[in-house]
Amino acid sequence: MTLATPELAGGGRTRLATIDCDIHNYLPSDTTLRKYLSERWCRYLDHFAGRVFHGLYYPLASQHAARTDAWPPSGLSPGSDLSFMQEQLLNRWDLEHGILLPLLGAGKQLNLEWGGAMSRAANDWQAAEWLDPEPRLRGSIVVTYEAPDLAVAEIHDRARDKRFVQVEFESRTHEPLGRRKYWPIYEAAAEHGLPIGMHFGAQGGWPITGVGSPSFYIEYHTGQAQSFQDQVISLVTEGVFERFPTLKFVLIEGGFGWLPPVMWRLDRAYARLKEEVPHLRRLPSEYIREHFWLTTQPIEEPHDPADFVVLLDDLGMDDHIMFSTDYPHWDFDAPDAAIPTSLAPERRRKIMSQNARALYRFA
Amino acid sequence: MTLATPELAGGGRTRLATIDCDIHNYLPSDTTLRKYLSERWCRYLDHFAGRVFHGLYYPLASQHAARTDAWPPSGLSPGSDLSFMQEQLLNRWDLEHGILLPLLGAGKQLNLEWGGAMSRAANDWQAAEWLDPEPRLRGSIVVTYEAPDLAVAEIHDRARDKRFVQVEFESRTHEPLGRRKYWPIYEAAAEHGLPIGMHFGAQGGWPITGVGSPSFYIEYHTGQAQSFQDQVISLVTEGVFERFPTLKFVLIEGGFGWLPPVMWRLDRAYARLKEEVPHLRRLPSEYIREHFWLTTQPIEEPHDPADFVVLLDDLGMDDHIMFSTDYPHWDFDAPDAAIPTSLAPERRRKIMSQNARALYRFA
Repeated sequence: MTLATPELAGGGRTRLATIDCDIHNYLPSDTTLRKYLSERWCRYLDHFAGRVFHGLYYPLASQHAARTDAWPPSGLSPGSDLSFMQEQLLNRWDLEHGILLPLLGAGKQLNLEWGGAMSRAANDWQAAEWLDPEPRLRGSIVVTYEAPDLAVAEIHDRARDKRFVQVEFESRTHEPLGRRKYWPIYEAAAEHGLPIGMHFGAQGGWPITGVGSPSFYIEYHTGQAQSFQDQVISLVTEGVFERFPTLKFVLIEGGFGWLPPVMWRLDRAYARLKEEVPHLRRLPSEYIREHFWLTTQPIEEPHDPADFVVLLDDLGMDDHIMFSTDYPHWDFDAPDAAIPTSLAPERRRKIMSQNARALYRFA
Repeated sequence: MTLATPELAGGGRTRLATIDCDIHNYLPSDTTLRKYLSERWCRYLDHFAGRVFHGLYYPLASQHAARTDAWPPSGLSPGSDLSFMQEQLLNRWDLEHGILLPLLGAGKQLNLEWGGAMSRAANDWQAAEWLDPEPRLRGSIVVTYEAPDLAVAEIHDRARDKRFVQVEFESRTHEPLGRRKYWPIYEAAAEHGLPIGMHFGAQGGWPITGVGSPSFYIEYHTGQAQSFQDQVISLVTEGVFERFPTLKFVLIEGGFGWLPPVMWRLDRAYARLKEEVPHLRRLPSEYIREHFWLTTQPIEEPHDPADFVVLLDDLGMDDHIMFSTDYPHWDFDAPDAAIPTSLAPERRRKIMSQNARALYRFA
């Protein structure tokens, strides 16, 4: 199976300053992580690693779900060769900054101690092989979020390195993310002023839909939005933002066309069901607009481009939408083609760089 | 816990002809169904019935999730007393027709043969105690959809009675509804020109979300929309409407604010993933606009009423939206308050009665 490479419109440079909030860097080989693991965990990796909840995976797994042109001349796999990423992404599109989101599966491990060791190694690897040589990149703190105590320890350790700008979650968790189990992680993130960057992925032990496992990848791809809906509803209704009033969530690769109707529905239900959630003190939509940030890829494109403006108006989150490419995946969004050019210049500037600059505190 | 009864605006009559596409009639007592069951199944009911997939339930289960004023003076439970329903719903709001959707749980039974017996009894009960005495009402054919062979037999038997106007499904099934398992049911429904009326509910064996079971009813209530999204995506991508080009689905109590972004997302994914679903010959949104109908309760209300018009424009399904009350449930929508009066009269007329009259072929 071959998937079309996204068409890259125009020349190599985009006119607006650009910050990319979703770049995936991968391990170049099975041995890379060993450099950052203790002897004990190297042995574990050889013999036992990889027991995860059942679930669904990317298509083209053997090809890293990558753009057909994302294979570096070095022979390494897509996303694992910094110099090729610099050439193909950072330089070509003249990116001001890019946020790394390594997808190594640390959060879905059933052996939680191994998940913790894997997280620590992944963060050491990010620092040594990506952030040290390339100052435009920023890291995400990989944590094993199903073991909050281990995740908290990793956040406290890593937050000293200011090049890590958020804590990384994947969206398919074992429990809805508003539940008490995860609160210690939010407390640690809030203490260090770090947003939680929730990227689509992982397997939490449940089928991706509430009605079982679908047949096709296209359903899985379209259904990504649902796990984000579940998490937003849970985080708001559990009162996470009353408890941690400075906590911020970034929803990465989840789209946002679905968010206005979720706000309408939740506000309407809240008006009648306040008694069940007395810990809330504001409308659900107010928490959402204050505490969530959104990235653009894959953006839902209304059939009529004018409706994209209506969607942004309904969202009312102009300061919280941030550009992303999802490099090196097959459904990459190019900086000069992702956002409708019909959008007002001020709105485009905010999306392409200003909002990310403010959230991640770039100088 | 008491839930507010919805406020009923204005007088007792609505100005527009009205057809209600979501009325729940209940069994008045545990013994009613026995009249319609064989001796064998009466014994089964006493000793074994009720083994269902785990799942979540309505709130106020002990109160039938009902409006506080829906308890008939007869002492029967809400929705189980025809004369009180006539007074409180059909007469008070001068309804032209109402569609019954009994929620007895036949579809979620693990003993499939019992589910079949229960369906047959439920349909006999509808005919004898609701449709015979009240000509304004229409029935939905209860089937045990997890056993397609039994469901097909029931549809063929029951379709002779033209007062049954659709086949009833609940939205939380054991597999996504597009999968081959369910195709014989669609074949039988299409043969008789009966739409599938899919109401929210049941338990298919999975938590209501893809990330586990949420803590609150408000999440369950807001999350209803997700199981409908899953089913629409599955039905379209599996090619059900290529195989059964006359088949129609009515989505009942699922809302529809979420549907435009699902169409945007699915069309976008389809453009790049056609190779996976070669059985499709049109854009996903084209199948959706042709084959799905929608009921209004609970309608998502945009914060700015003008956006409701934009939502209808984005949907592009003016001939497929049908009014419903969800009587006797606590979140009942009154005919004179449910649809924004700012809507153009022609649009309101279609929603309040014309679309249901056409779909269900009322004379």
